Order: sequence, then C-alpha cells, then structure tokens
Amino acid sequence: MQLTPKVKEILSWYESDNPGTKANIARILMEGRLGGTGRMVILPVDQGFEHGPARSFAPNPAAYDPRYHFELAIEAGLNAYAAPLGMIEAGASTFAGAIPTILKVNSSNSLSTTKDQAVTGSVNDALRLGCSAIGFTIYPSSEYQFEMMEELRELAEEAKASGLAVVVWSYPRGPMLDKTGETALDICAYAAHMAALLGAHIIKVKPPMDAISLDAAKKTYEKHPVELQHQAARIRHVVQACFNGRRLVVFSGGETGTTENILATTRAIHEGGGNGSIIGRNTFQRPRAEALELLGQVIGIYAGESG
Amino acid sequence: MQLTPKVKEILSWYESDNPGTKANIARILMEGRLGGTGRMVILPVDQGFEHGPARSFAPNPAAYDPRYHFELAIEAGLNAYAAPLGMIEAGASTFAGAIPTILKVNSSNSLSTTKDQAVTGSVNDALRLGCSAIGFTIYPSSEYQFEMMEELRELAEEAKASGLAVVVWSYPRGPMLDKTGETALDICAYAAHMAALLGAHIIKVKPPMDAISLDAAKKTYEKHPVELQHQAARIRHVVQACFNGRRLVVFSGGETGTTENILATTRAIHEGGGNGSIIGRNTFQRPRAEALELLGQVIGIYAGESG
Amino acid sequence: MQLTPKVKEILSWYESDNPGTKANIARILMEGRLGGTGRMVILPVDQGFEHGPARSFAPNPAAYDPRYHFELAIEAGLNAYAAPLGMIEAGASTFAGAIPTILKVNSSNSLSTTKDQAVTGSVNDALRLGCSAIGFTIYPSSEYQFEMMEELRELAEEAKASGLAVVVWSYPRGPMLDKTGETALDICAYAAHMAALLGAHIIKVKPPMDAISLDAAKKTYEKHPVELQHQAARIRHVVQACFNGRRLVVFSGGETGTTENILATTRAIHEGGGNGSIIGRNTFQRPRAEALELLGQVIGIYAGESG
Amino acid sequence: MQLTPKVKEILSWYESDNPGTKANIARILMEGRLGGTGRMVILPVDQGFEHGPARSFAPNPAAYDPRYHFELAIEAGLNAYAAPLGMIEAGASTFAGAIPTILKVNSSNSLSTTKDQAVTGSVNDALRLGCSAIGFTIYPSSEYQFEMMEELRELAEEAKASGLAVVVWSYPRGPMLDKTGETALDICAYAAHMAALLGAHIIKVKPPMDAISLDAAKKTYEKHPVELQHQAARIRHVVQACFNGRRLVVFSGGETGTTENILATTRAIHEGGGNGSIIGRNTFQRPRAEALELLGQVIGIYAGESG
Amino acid sequence: MQLTPKVKEILSWYESDNPGTKANIARILMEGRLGGTGRMVILPVDQGFEHGPARSFAPNPAAYDPRYHFELAIEAGLNAYAAPLGMIEAGASTFAGAIPTILKVNSSNSLSTTKDQAVTGSVNDALRLGCSAIGFTIYPSSEYQFEMMEELRELAEEAKASGLAVVVWSYPRGPMLDKTGETALDICAYAAHMAALLGAHIIKVKPPMDAISLDAAKKTYEKHPVELQHQAARIRHVVQACFNGRRLVVFSGGETGTTENILATTRAIHEGGGNGSIIGRNTFQRPRAEALELLGQVIGIYAGESG
Repeated sequence: MQLTPKVKEILSWYESDNPGTKANIARILMEGRLGGTGRMVILPVDQGFEHGPARSFAPNPAAYDPRYHFELAIEAGLNAYAAPLGMIEAGASTFAGAIPTILKVNSSNSLSTTKDQAVTGSVNDALRLGCSAIGFTIYPSSEYQFEMMEELRELAEEAKASGLAVVVWSYPRGPMLDKTGETALDICAYAAHMAALLGAHIIKVKPPMDAISLDAAKKTYEKHPVELQHQAARIRHVVQACFNGRRLVVFSGGETGTTENILATTRAIHEGGGNGSIIGRNTFQRPRAEALELLGQVIGIYAGESG
Repeated sequence: MQLTPKVKEILSWYESDNPGTKANIARILMEGRLGGTGRMVILPVDQGFEHGPARSFAPNPAAYDPRYHFELAIEAGLNAYAAPLGMIEAGASTFAGAIPTILKVNSSNSLSTTKDQAVTGSVNDALRLGCSAIGFTIYPSSEYQFEMMEELRELAEEAKASGLAVVVWSYPRGPMLDKTGETALDICAYAAHMAALLGAHIIKVKPPMDAISLDAAKKTYEKHPVELQHQAARIRHVVQACFNGRRLVVFSGGETGTTENILATTRAIHEGGGNGSIIGRNTFQRPRAEALELLGQVIGIYAGESG
Repeated sequence: MQLTPKVKEILSWYESDNPGTKANIARILMEGRLGGTGRMVILPVDQGFEHGPARSFAPNPAAYDPRYHFELAIEAGLNAYAAPLGMIEAGASTFAGAIPTILKVNSSNSLSTTKDQAVTGSVNDALRLGCSAIGFTIYPSSEYQFEMMEELRELAEEAKASGLAVVVWSYPRGPMLDKTGETALDICAYAAHMAALLGAHIIKVKPPMDAISLDAAKKTYEKHPVELQHQAARIRHVVQACFNGRRLVVFSGGETGTTENILATTRAIHEGGGNGSIIGRNTFQRPRAEALELLGQVIGIYAGESG
Repeated sequence: MQLTPKVKEILSWYESDNPGTKANIARILMEGRLGGTGRMVILPVDQGFEHGPARSFAPNPAAYDPRYHFELAIEAGLNAYAAPLGMIEAGASTFAGAIPTILKVNSSNSLSTTKDQAVTGSVNDALRLGCSAIGFTIYPSSEYQFEMMEELRELAEEAKASGLAVVVWSYPRGPMLDKTGETALDICAYAAHMAALLGAHIIKVKPPMDAISLDAAKKTYEKHPVELQHQAARIRHVVQACFNGRRLVVFSGGETGTTENILATTRAIHEGGGNGSIIGRNTFQRPRAEALELLGQVIGIYAGESG
Repeated sequence: MQLTPKVKEILSWYESDNPGTKANIARILMEGRLGGTGRMVILPVDQGFEHGPARSFAPNPAAYDPRYHFELAIEAGLNAYAAPLGMIEAGASTFAGAIPTILKVNSSNSLSTTKDQAVTGSVNDALRLGCSAIGFTIYPSSEYQFEMMEELRELAEEAKASGLAVVVWSYPRGPMLDKTGETALDICAYAAHMAALLGAHIIKVKPPMDAISLDAAKKTYEKHPVELQHQAARIRHVVQACFNGRRLVVFSGGETGTTENILATTRAIHEGGGNGSIIGRNTFQRPRAEALELLGQVIGIYAGESG
C-alpha cells in the first residue's frame, strides 16, 4: 500500500523513532475512510472504567458487548479503536488485522477519591494482542502528576523500543484548577505541550474553551492575543503548542453533546488544523445507525466534504 | 472427555487466551456435578486469613484441618477449591488431580487498619502446586485500589503466559462507600465490570442489593431502570456488566445466612443468568453432613432440578 | 478493513496463536493485489547472501540498491517482502507501513563448505524494524539440521510471544540426498511437514519433482499412489502434508526459468491448492518492466483470471 | 582535533571519570565559537515544560518548532543544546552530530503545587538520541529534595558508567527560603557545592545576589567577608564553592532582562571566573537576528574580546 | 558544527538507525582533514594481536607505546583510530575527545591453527572508553564463519541500541579459497556484500585483485563483465556490492607496500568511488615523519588535490 505524501510528511516528524513505530503510526493514518489524509477519527471505550457500566452502556445496551465497539469502528471506517485490556482481549482475535488498536494501559474510576490512575496493561500485552500503540492518561496539575509522568516515561521507552506508538491523553485536573480552568485555552495548550515533551506520538486533549486560567499566563495572552472567541483559533493555538503542528493532536468529543455541537466542534478542529477526533460516548451511547450517521458526518467534515 | 457445547461456547469468549488458560477454564467448568453446564460452585477457604482461625473454624473444628476442605469440595462434587498458599500446600499432594484448585495470591486480615492486602502467593507457586488458576482480591474505592490493580496486572500477565486462569474477587470498600454502598447494585455492577476490564476470566462479586449508591449514577438508572426489588433482575444487570455475559461471574454467599436465604439467593443467581456460587463459611462452618446437604441443594438448583 | 471470509478461515487454523500473530498473518494475507484471496506472492531477496552480489544483481544492476526491491514489491502489489537485516534496514523507514516485511533471521553463503546457516537477525530487530514475521531456513538431512531446528525453536517461541508470524524455508540437503532427492516428492512433502511440526505459520518449499527418493517411502507411495507426473497433483500432496491444508504453504520459483515455466508452475500451484509463490531471482534479475509484467501474470493466475 | 591546554586541564579535574565521560565533556568544551577556551554558552529550552508554551514561545512564534532551537544553537556557535525528551526527539536525527545535546531528564511545571519534578527521560534515551550528557534539576531546601537527590544519584551512576556527562541544575527553593533567600549568595554557593558533592560534572546555578540568607552562615561571612556588592566577587565565591574552581559552573540568565543587564552579568561571570552562561528565554524569545546578535556579544565577552 | 551536504546525504542512507548511531557516524565523517568530504582515512592498530609485537613494532620501536598511535592519527588529521581493548585503554583518557575511536572487539593471533577470533571487547567497554564504534572481523568461508557472524549479530544489536556505529572487517579465508581467491574480485565483492547484509555501517575489505575465484560466478562475470585489469573498476564493483554505494566502504592497505603502490591504490579507490583507506602497517612501521608524509599524500588524493 503506497503511503500518501501527507502521511509520509507526518512520519518525517517522528525522525528519532525506529521503523516499527513509524509503521504503526502509518497503519493508523492509512486506515479507514480518512486513510491517507492525515486526519483521524478514533473510537475510545474506556468509559466503563471511568464512569461504570450503566452510565456508559445503558443508553444503548448492545454496547455492553465488547464486540460491538470493534464492529462500530470498522463499519464506520475509523482509524483506530482504543480500550482497556479486557475490552481488547474480548475481541482481538475475532478482529485481528481488521483495525488498528490502542491498548489503554492505565485507567481511573469514579470510586476513587484521588486524581490518579492504575497501570492496567503492559507493552507485552500490547504486542501479544497485536496493538499498534499504547495509550496512557496523565493528569497535569494533579498531586499524582509526577508519578503518572514517570510511569508513562517507563512504558513509552519500552513501547518505542518494541516498535509501538504512544498516545497520551493529557487531562489537566487538580488543586489549582476549577472546572473552567481544566479546559481553559492556556491550560489545554500547556497540557498538549507537556505530552509532546514527554515523547507522545499522538496527543489527545479536550477542545479548549474561551478562558485563560493561570494568572501568570494572562499577561502573555494579552500581549500575544489568540482570538479566544473562535473555536478554530483556539484549536490552532493548541496545534501550535504541539511543536508547531509537528505532533499529531486529536480532540475528544467532551461531554455528551447534541449532533450540532459535535459537528460544530469538528468543523473548528478541521479549520484550526487539528488532526481529528476521539469520540466515545457521543457515538456508542446512540443507536448504531445514528452513531454511524454521526461518524459519517464527522468523517465527511475532515474529508473536506463539508468543511 | 468431550466438552459440552455450553462449555465450548464459554471458552470461545476467551479468544485472546492461549490454549493452556482455556484448558484450565475448561477443567473447572467440566468438574463435579455441574460439569459441562456452564454453572459452577466453588469452595473458598480464605476465612482463616480474613477473620482468624477460631471465628472461621471453631463452629466445626474438623475444618481446622486443611484436608477437610479438599474432601468436602470433592465429596460435594464442586468445581474448584480456592485457598491461600498454606492451605493448598497442606493438601495439594494428597489430592493432586482430584479437584481443580485456585491459589488465592493475596490476602487481608482483621488486624489491619488499612483496606489493602498482602501478595502471599505467586504464579510459580500455582504451577508447582498444580493449580488451575490464581485468585486475587481488589477493593475498588479503597485508597489502595490502584496499587492492588497494578499487582493484579502483573500477576495476571504472568499467569496467562503460563496457561493459568485468573479469578478476581472484586469487593468495593473505601471512603466513598458506606455499608449499603458496598453492595449497592450500581457499585456491584461497576466492580464486576472493572474486574472484566482488568482481564479476569472469572469474576466474583457479592450479590447486589436493592440500592443505588453513586449520585452520578442515579440519573442513568432512573432513565434506564433495573427492577431493583428483584434479586434475579439485579443479578442479570451484573451479568450484563460482565461484557454482556461474555465473562464468567459467580456470587459469594455473603455473611452467614440461613439455608433458606442461601437457596433463595442461589435461585436468583440461576434465574438471573449468573454462573454460580462461591460458598465458604456457610458450608464449612456446618457439620459435614449438613454442608453436603446444602451444597447438594445449591447444585440441584443450578442443575435445573428445582430452578 | 474487513477481513474476507477466506482470510478469517485461514486465521482460524492458527488457533493457538495470540491475536498479535494472527494480525500479522492477516496483514500479509490482506495486502496487495491478492489481498483477501488466501493466495500470496512474496518477494524474497536473500540471493545476495546465498550466491553473492554479482550472481544476484548483475543481470539487472538497479537491483543492487535495496530500495529497488521495496519498490518492486509495492508496485507489483505483492503480499510481503523478505530479506536479511541489512536489506531491511536500508529501506524500512522510507517504506514504513507500505508493505509487510519478513526479516530473514538466518543466512548461508556460497563460501561455506558446510550445510549450515548463521543466525543474523533477532526478534528485537524484527520489532524495531516493523516486520510482520521472521523467516528462518532449515536444511532437513544436513548434519546441522538439529542445531538449525533448535535455533528455530528458540526464535519462534520469542516471535510468537511478541505477536510476530514465523515463516520457515524448508530445504532438504545433506549426505542422504543427491540433487534429485532434494526435490523428490516424498522429500519435499516430508520437509514441509517438518516445518509444520516445528510450528511454522507459513511454509516455503521448492516445487516437488517427479521422483520418490527414500527407499523406505517407496512402498507407501506404491500402495497409495500420487499422480507423480502431474505437477498439480504433486503440489496437492505437499499441501496435504501441511496438516491437510491447514498451514499456509508457498513454493519457490526455483532456479532461473523461462516465463512459460514459471507460469506453468504457478498454474500447478494454483490448481493443486498451494497458497502462492515466493519468487526472487526470476523477478529482480529481469528489467523492472518485465518483472512487473511477469508478476502481474502470476498474480492473475492466483486471482483466477487465467487459472 | 587537538584539545587545547585549557580543556586538557579541565578534563584533569575529572580524574575519576572514565574516558567516555571525559570525551563528552571535551565535546561540549571544544564545540562552537568558545571551543577550547574553557568557557561555554549553552541553550536550554525547558521553558515550555516549566512555564507553558505560550509564555515561552508566543513572543517569537518560530520557537514553537523544535528545529528552531537546534538551528539557533548551531548558528550562534554555542557549546550545547539542552532540552526535554520530546524536543530532542523532534530534531536529533536531522541535527545528529551537529551540536552536543544534553537530555534534560526531569522536569517540573507551573501546574504543580509541590516543589518536585518528574523523571521524564533515561540514560538509554540519552544514548539512543546521541546526547553527550543528562541534565537534572534538584531543589535544595524543598521537602522533596532528598528524593530528587536520590533520583539524581541513580541516574548519574548509570550515566557515568555509559560514558555520559552529568549536568546539575541546582535551584534552592522550599519552606526555609523566601524569594531573596533563593538567590542569596550563601544559598547559591551552598547549592553549587551540593551539586559538586553529588558528583555533577557541570553545575548550573542562578547568579548570586547581594544577600546572606541563613542565620547560621552570617557569622562566618562577617568573619570572612565576601565583597557582596560586586557581582564578580559573588561569582568568584560560587566558583570557590565548586571545589575551588575544579568543577565547571555556569550561570543562568535568570528572568527576562535587558540586553545591558545580560551583558553586565556576563562580564561579571567572566571576571569572577565562572565557566559560562545558560541562556534560554533571553535568546529564543527575541527575533532570531536579535538573539544571534546578543549571543554573539555574550560569546565575545567570554572570548575576551570585550572582557 | 554544520554537517556538509555530503555527510547529510550519507547519514540518510542509515535511515533505520537511531540518532545516536547517526551522530557517531557523523563524528567520524566530520573529523580530520577529510572531515565533511565523505572520504575517510582510519588508522588501525591490531597488528600486534595478529602478528605479534616485534613483527608489528620493531621496524619503528616508538610504536610499541600505545600513545604513539593516538598521536599519529591526530597529527595526521585522520578520521578515526581503531584498536583492541588494551591499546584503547592505554590512551583513551589522555586523548579523550581528540579523535573518534573504534574499539576492535574481536581479535585473532598467529599462534592459532584455526581461522577464528576471540571476542575481546564489549559494547560497555566501548561506551566507558568513549568510542564511536565497535569493530568486528568476520572470515567468510572459514569453518567458523557462522559463529563469527552470530557473535557480530549480537554485538551489533547492542551497539546500535546504545547509539554506536558498527564497522565490519570482512576478510574471506577458508578451505575453499587459496591465496588468490582471498582477494579475487568476486570474493571481495561478496565479502563486502555480506557485511552490508549483516548490518554494518562501515565495511572494510582488502583491495580486490584481478581474478574471479568461484566457478559458479565466472559465468556471471563473463556475461556482465567488469574491467578486471583496472583497479578503479574493481573498486567500483565492490562499491556497487555495498548496496549500490549506500554503505560506507573502506579498503585496507594490504601487505606492506611501496609508497608508490599505496598511492596508486589510493588513486584507484578514489576514482572507483570507495570511501577511503584503513592503513596500519604501512604507516606505523615507518618513521613518524615518513608516515605523516605518506598519510598527507593519501589524504591529498581523497581531498581531490591530486586525484
């Protein structure tokens, strides 16, 4: 399969990685309906761990079955499917070779009172399950942030040596940040930048909102303003924070939203130069037909059909 | 020995596991009077560690002798016997090949002020003792939950590579949960789901009670109601949380109960689609004949004789 | 990418392998113009090691450049490209993700007086270079055959644990075999069967010739005759020897031949149920346009266009 | 390349180090326009981690691109470039061999409420990326200082065994120190001395200010006065604290300053016998031409052109 | 130090290597009077091991002192100095950073009756001694060739992971080769090609002579003739065998020769596109002044001054 010039250009950014890691990044970028465009839509299903099974799957009970998500991702023509160990184990053989998978190797849950996560998968697990990447969440600003970064460091070094890619979910939360702060533009850009500095190949953050949170940063943004009220401009700033666009960055769908909100966010990501979306809840909690329709629209925007 | 279609179907759920692990799951499922039905009754004797010897064995002093439990499990026609290292070592040679064993590899005790457990056995121990599985307890919501999950991760990876099965006891407890919360339906389903996500082959939880504990979950259950007052409906919801029934889930007997309570719970598990019971105290604290009679009745229910 | 039913059926043969290995077999089977048919054409370039650079590349000097072979395999729409370490290193980054690669991890040369090979690559090399499989040659009947089988065993175990596939070149040679014996039908079937018994996922042998070599085997073949004079019947017998067709078996092009010979052999492999061809010299020693034309014809036969 | 007598003399101070470490110290000292003088100017770009991307790069948006900093350091003729993992990975192949690099292996950030850092790189990372040294920050006086020192010890031991150099950023902060205290002369000298005692080859501290912070130290300084009001005298005292000048010590540019302030500090470092400057923000936040001009002036001072 | 376009082009050939290895190749290519030209002259001093001290050093007793060779290489402006462990240890500290070194990690001697070598150095040794590469000799055609290749494989994998380069001396000798055969053109090209396939970054062979040794190769060379009588044409063929010139190849000076012979060979290497010379005996056995003069002339030829 010939790689497109766009994908070759993206691979050139990862100049210190071995060919195995580059091949796995290429696999994700060449898969599905957006294959070759440099844009991606990824299905993440770690909601069950984070929020519990009923809050995740009761709205669409077919989604209790792990095979449902593999099928959804394949049928919708997505680039990759990301989930914790048990979810991947429950379908990795049936769907071997059918879609790139990302093993989410740490997880939190709603029964925790601390802003930490447990390491729940390994690089060996990712290799035996045929995954293209490991996924890891950090909580910048949490009192456990340094431990999380150190766990990531160790897993990422091993993953890269084994030819796997590393996807980092960077979700700021902690004593310095209120709800607004967690998705403020400066915080979001900072979180994305730290993931890049930690060696992530693909960075996932929440869409940045119209706020600047850190007092120390306000002066900078006043002097070097970003068009805060435009989502696309905010996205562009986050892309800039990812090594001036030389690292892949995708945005979560965030909390459950209306179709119109999701599509508006998608258009802003597309316009702002983001590399795509990770959409979980907003798809698997809808009936399959609706989910496929929504994903088709999202893909259409990234494909430039309605950008 | 031909596996039954039911057992073959169950093994197909574990598609990412090697044949060794599948064979050990099959051994448990094909053993005893319920062999081949997809239902199980397991005898766990970790009470001595958890509550001390007298509280565990004084009601039936014969049970101080580790051989008693092997004999009880075999004579009753159970599927497996689970216990900590010393208990297994004290009978593994005499009863080698006579019944599948599960080495409980972590344990807590009543002299601890923290909600944690010690790792007290290894995969090597399980192999040298001829065990079919390792057993591990996690306490979701405990302040030690992430460490426990990480210990499980490491042991489970090694067990699976060595062809063993992994049984996870998932018992929520911690600062967010009062006594009711620990067995509330949402919490119980969540605990079971997390065990599945952590890669458990067999999940053990307490029978779920008629309560919803997490505020964040209440809205979901209101919108997507479960018949809370029916034990069988609650069981069915927990089964659903175990990958829509694609992971084996068994229920503990809970605190010491009357025969009638135990049988009622058993009928609900059977009706709700649970895969069986783990009954410790309620059997080995009774005189042998009574225990055998009770186990016979429980097995009869799962065998459909009085379901 | 949805796997075809044919490829799913083939994957089901490898039931003891982990999903990673299955995914890599799937990648090879889904690639190129024969993707999804269960047939394969693979380009092997280990001739330089075996026969020296001039004997390999002087007829078509462009082939001295390692990038030439990646390009040829991709442009021709082949399933995979196999070569020793240096050849893969020289293009693995440029062509990352563009075609499945097989790292040939042992090699012989024409300067050796013994029928042995050196181990020249590792599973770590295969992982860092993004290969889908390791390739290993055994010489059944050689005085070094047992050492070679033991090296294969060790490498194959490691490859399988890491989610890679194992391709075995089984080339009988040694004191008991004259030139005719090396490709006699009974010897060829025997060599293929031993590769299957050693755990190979894909077996490569030479096309079997119209001879029975071992005296001990003659009686059996007299009693249970194979239509020796028909190439397709001989192929069918080798396929039978590969677990009755439940292991993938491909055939080398053998010594440099005319286009007509090659196509006739291809038709026989196709008719006899072989899974494809590994064609090196017969392609890269021709000018590129001729090589592409020949490969197009070979692929056409396997695709049923001219079978 | 013949080493200068000055560099040979400096290497003689590191008499317990192996030749690999000495060669890497020599590489840094022989590079760039100050090559061979025993003075150094190093470009550090860990600001993005410490202060966030916009505060670091918005004043000069070209600096969002990691390649910018490699180019700036090379074009300015500096001795080395220091940055965290992701920044180095993003250019290490393009600029391989073009300038010595220092992998910053721990990092803090402005979202932390604790005075600690995460370990974010390893000695293996430094070797695979071709770095000449690892860089590590300690916060003497922090409640995490001992953990940080222990992490340094472990990494430094491994780095030295692998032939790498160790650069220690020693920045006092913690409950005993107010803003003035952090750069007071006694504290600064103490911080530098501890870095030397911990086995640093190159020590980085902030320029010492005109204050004595520790009561316990005041008596000593009264009895053995240092000309506090002269920056060069203060620098000389810090150099003295670095084994009487037998360890390399460089000084940070500190907060953003005017060109005149920077040059005045540089003159003082030069006069006081310091080995050079680490200047980050003050260069990469200016337009490239201005940064090159400033660096040219700084280098000129160390080269004795305007000392 | 800016790399020249020529060196950047050469580094691009090593696309699967990490930046550390690329940096070490760059260091060798950028060093000395030929720095940046893509040509190299390397001083190897393993003669003492191969032929004994008196045969090696008696003609110029100053050469008994290991420091002599470091000085000679540095003064002559060579690219690198290669020697066994003891020789490197005896000067690595004094000359740290002054010239890239290549640790010869295997060695033979004249007291051996077998064509094998002992492994006498490690990758750890190379790191602690600050070497840029390991050097390893294989004897293709020897009855020990496969063991030697396997030792190389293991050392090369470790060296590459640690950011070192790998230099392979490929010297055919063994039962199939008489004295003429050892340097016959076909054998020399074959030996160089095998080193490339084994993953060498820099290949060292003897200058090829006017002979074709292998009967099997004669037909090829008749059909695709090389101008055998011209040394430059023979060199060009060897370069072709090194991945069509995409691997660095240097030629030994061979047996002690007259100055005129050496310069003639140098001119042929230069004209044929070889990357340079490794000259040992022919320099260190002459008085220092004469050696420097000869090396100056050799370098002059590669620099195009008299090519």
